[in-house]
Amino acid sequence: MTPRLHAVQSPDVTSVITLLTDYGLEDGFVASCHGVIISIAPQTRIIDVCHLVPAGDIRRGAAILAQTLPYLPAGVHVAAVDPSAAGARRSVAVEAGNRLFIGPDNGLLSWALLAAGGARTAYEIANTELFLSPVSPTFHGRDIYAPVAAHLCGGRKPADLGPEIPLDRLLSLPAPTARRGEDAVEGEVLSLDRYGNVQLSVTADDLAALGIRVGGTVAVSMGRRQVTMPFRDTYAAVPPGTLVVFTDSAGLVAFAVNSGDAAQRLGLPPGAHVRLARGPEI
Amino acid sequence: MTPRLHAVQSPDVTSVITLLTDYGLEDGFVASCHGVIISIAPQTRIIDVCHLVPAGDIRRGAAILAQTLPYLPAGVHVAAVDPSAAGARRSVAVEAGNRLFIGPDNGLLSWALLAAGGARTAYEIANTELFLSPVSPTFHGRDIYAPVAAHLCGGRKPADLGPEIPLDRLLSLPAPTARRGEDAVEGEVLSLDRYGNVQLSVTADDLAALGIRVGGTVAVSMGRRQVTMPFRDTYAAVPPGTLVVFTDSAGLVAFAVNSGDAAQRLGLPPGAHVRLARGPEI
Amino acid sequence: MTPRLHAVQSPDVTSVITLLTDYGLEDGFVASCHGVIISIAPQTRIIDVCHLVPAGDIRRGAAILAQTLPYLPAGVHVAAVDPSAAGARRSVAVEAGNRLFIGPDNGLLSWALLAAGGARTAYEIANTELFLSPVSPTFHGRDIYAPVAAHLCGGRKPADLGPEIPLDRLLSLPAPTARRGEDAVEGEVLSLDRYGNVQLSVTADDLAALGIRVGGTVAVSMGRRQVTMPFRDTYAAVPPGTLVVFTDSAGLVAFAVNSGDAAQRLGLPPGAHVRLARGPEI
Repeated sequence: MTPRLHAVQSPDVTSVITLLTDYGLEDGFVASCHGVIISIAPQTRIIDVCHLVPAGDIRRGAAILAQTLPYLPAGVHVAAVDPSAAGARRSVAVEAGNRLFIGPDNGLLSWALLAAGGARTAYEIANTELFLSPVSPTFHGRDIYAPVAAHLCGGRKPADLGPEIPLDRLLSLPAPTARRGEDAVEGEVLSLDRYGNVQLSVTADDLAALGIRVGGTVAVSMGRRQVTMPFRDTYAAVPPGTLVVFTDSAGLVAFAVNSGDAAQRLGLPPGAHVRLARGPEI
Repeated sequence: MTPRLHAVQSPDVTSVITLLTDYGLEDGFVASCHGVIISIAPQTRIIDVCHLVPAGDIRRGAAILAQTLPYLPAGVHVAAVDPSAAGARRSVAVEAGNRLFIGPDNGLLSWALLAAGGARTAYEIANTELFLSPVSPTFHGRDIYAPVAAHLCGGRKPADLGPEIPLDRLLSLPAPTARRGEDAVEGEVLSLDRYGNVQLSVTADDLAALGIRVGGTVAVSMGRRQVTMPFRDTYAAVPPGTLVVFTDSAGLVAFAVNSGDAAQRLGLPPGAHVRLARGPEI
Repeated sequence: MTPRLHAVQSPDVTSVITLLTDYGLEDGFVASCHGVIISIAPQTRIIDVCHLVPAGDIRRGAAILAQTLPYLPAGVHVAAVDPSAAGARRSVAVEAGNRLFIGPDNGLLSWALLAAGGARTAYEIANTELFLSPVSPTFHGRDIYAPVAAHLCGGRKPADLGPEIPLDRLLSLPAPTARRGEDAVEGEVLSLDRYGNVQLSVTADDLAALGIRVGGTVAVSMGRRQVTMPFRDTYAAVPPGTLVVFTDSAGLVAFAVNSGDAAQRLGLPPGAHVRLARGPEI
C-alpha cells in the first residue's frame, strides 16, 4: 500500500525532522522541542506528526507513526511516548530504509521500522555531548531527542551517538496480525479514531481471499455477538446511522457508522478480537 | 472590512498553501498532508487555518475560511470538510482574486470565494497524474488535494487539472443575510466560538442604519424572548457576567458575556433567527 | 537551571517570532496571526508556544512562557492573554537579554522577563502606522502584535513603536515564592499540567537545603492534611497509583501519581499553599 508520489524530489534526509509525542498541546512542551531543534539546526523543517497520543499509549503511538510514515518525506523521525519516563529503558537511533528513527527502546518505533522496510542498524543514544545539560529525567524529548535529531541534521553521523546495538535486542511490539482461515479471517481492533471508526488488523486482501467484495456483506463475530454489515467503498455509501465495513485511508479494514460513531455503537476496545466471514448476498 | 496591511510585500501566490479540515489533531491525518506537500514542493510554506472544524460541518468550515482569508497571504487555499466522503460530488479548483482554492464542490469554498472577490474560473480536478496512487475514497485531502496543491506551487497551471466548469454550476451555500427593516434588522446566528461568543450575520453598518451606536442599547428578540443589551466596543466594557452586544474581530455583530458564555446563557444554536432593534437610552 | 545548548548557532533575533495565546485551535484566530506575519515578513520562522492557555488566565500564560523560554531561540516573543480585551491597559514592547517581548501590560510578560535576565528597556506600542487598519478592540494579537512583531523582524527598531516607559511602571505579577524556614519550606501550587502533575513554586535547592535528598521522603502539609511522599528522580520510580515528589522538567518540585492524576487525587488548585519538611526515613 505504499503510495506513489509522482515526480517527487524528496528533500534531503537531513533537512526534515518529524515529531510524535504524548505531550499534548496545553503546555509549552512541544514548543520546547521545536526551539531546541531550531536553535541547533535553524534550517531544519519540522513536521508535527501528532502530539495528542493518549498519555503513555505506546501502541497507539506506534500505529499512528507507522500509518503516517509512507506520506512523510525521509528525515529524522523522533517519537516520544514513554510511560516508564526514562526509568528503565535506553534510547535508540535506528536506521531503516532511507530514514532515521529516534526514540525510547520500548516498542514505540517497531511498527514504523517495519513500514520503512525493516531496521538496518541501531545505536544506543549515549553521547551526552549531544544532549542538553542538565537532562531532566522526565523530558528526554526536549533534552536528548530534540538536540540529537538536530545534530544529525547538522551533519553528525548515527555512529557518533553511541555503541551499536544488535538488531535482535531492540524491543518490538507484537505485530498486529490477522489469521486467514478457510471460511473467515480473525483479527483484532487496532485503533479508534476521533470519528469513532474502528480500524482492524485486517486488510482488503484478506477479505478478497474470502471472496468478499465491495457491494457484498460481511458476517462479523465479536465475542458472542454476530452482525452482518455491508462492505462498501466508503461509509458515505450507506444511509446515515448505518454500520458499514470499508477499507480505510491506511489500507486497513474498518467499521464505521455513516454520520455516527461505530466505536461507541459496537463497544469494541483496542485489542478486541473480531472474526470476519462472507455474509449473505442481499 | 478588508484589513490594510501597511507596506506589505506579499509572498508569491505559488509559495504558500493553507489548509482547513475537519481531520482533528488526534491522528497523523494533518501530518500526512504536510508530508505529501513537502515531498513534492519542499519550499512551500504551509499555514494551518484550522483542523478542528466539527466533523462534516460545511457551514462552520466555510465561515472560518471566509473570515480568516483577509489575513492570509495569497496562495493555494485547500479546504476539506466533506460529509459525503467523496461519495457523490466532484473536486474543484477555483480562481478568485489572486487566490486559488481547492476543495470539494459542496459549498465549503463558496463564502471564501465571495470574500476573495468572486470566482473567476473553475476547473474540475480530474487529472489523476497529479494524484497519489492509489486514492483512498475517504482521504481526498491527502491523496488528491495535497499533491495537487503542491504541484500548483511547483508550476502546474489550474487548467492542467481538468475541464473548465461553468461558474454557475458550482455549489454555493446560501449566503447568511441580514434583512434591514425600518425599525429592526433580522439575521441569524452564524457561529459560536470557544469563548461562547454568538456571532450574527449582522454587521455594525446594519446597526448604524437603525441609529444604534456604541454606548446605546439593543432590543434583541429571539423567538418569544426579548432581552435588552448594552452595545459596547468590547465585552470587557460591561461588568463580569453581563450580556453585551459588540462588533467582533470579523466585523460582525456578536453577543457575549464578559468572563462568561453567551452561547450557553442564551441557548442559541447556529441558524437561529434574531431580530435587533434600537433599545431604550439608559 | 538555564539549559546549555552545545555548539549552538542561534539564529538571528530578527528571524524568529514565537506566539503564546489563549485563542484556542477551534477557529482561524491563530492562522490569522500567522498570515499577517508571513504577509509582512515572509522569511520569518514562527514557533507556536501554546494557544490553549485557559481563556484569560494570565498567570498560567506567564508560567508557560517563562518555563518554555530557556529552550526558545532569541526572537520576538509575542504573548496575548488579556481578559480586559484591550479595555484599560496599554500594549508594550520590552527588551530583556537578547530577546524582545510584545504583549499587553497586564503582568503576562513579567515572569518571562525575569527568566530572560530582567527588562532593560520598554516602549508603549503606539505607532498606528505599524498596525492593521482597522484595529478590532478584541483582537490586538492579529491587528497590533502580529504586524508589529513582523515589522520588527523586517528591521524596525523598538524605539519606533512609541514612547519609552519607565521600567518600574510595567505591571508585574507577584513572583511565586517559596519561604525556606529552618525545618520546612512553604510554597504554593504554580500550575497543573495535563498529566495531573502539580507543580510547586519550590525548587530542588529548597529541598536540598532542608537535607531532603532523592531516595528520602517529604512530609507534605496542605491545610489540615498531612501526607508523606517518597522523593524520587521521576514519577516512574514508584509503583503505579503511588504519590511521589520529584523535580520536574522546569526544575521545580512537583507532586505526581505514577500512571495517575495527582491534581485530582490531592484536590489542590493553583495558588494553594503547601509546606514541605523532611520526612521519616523508610
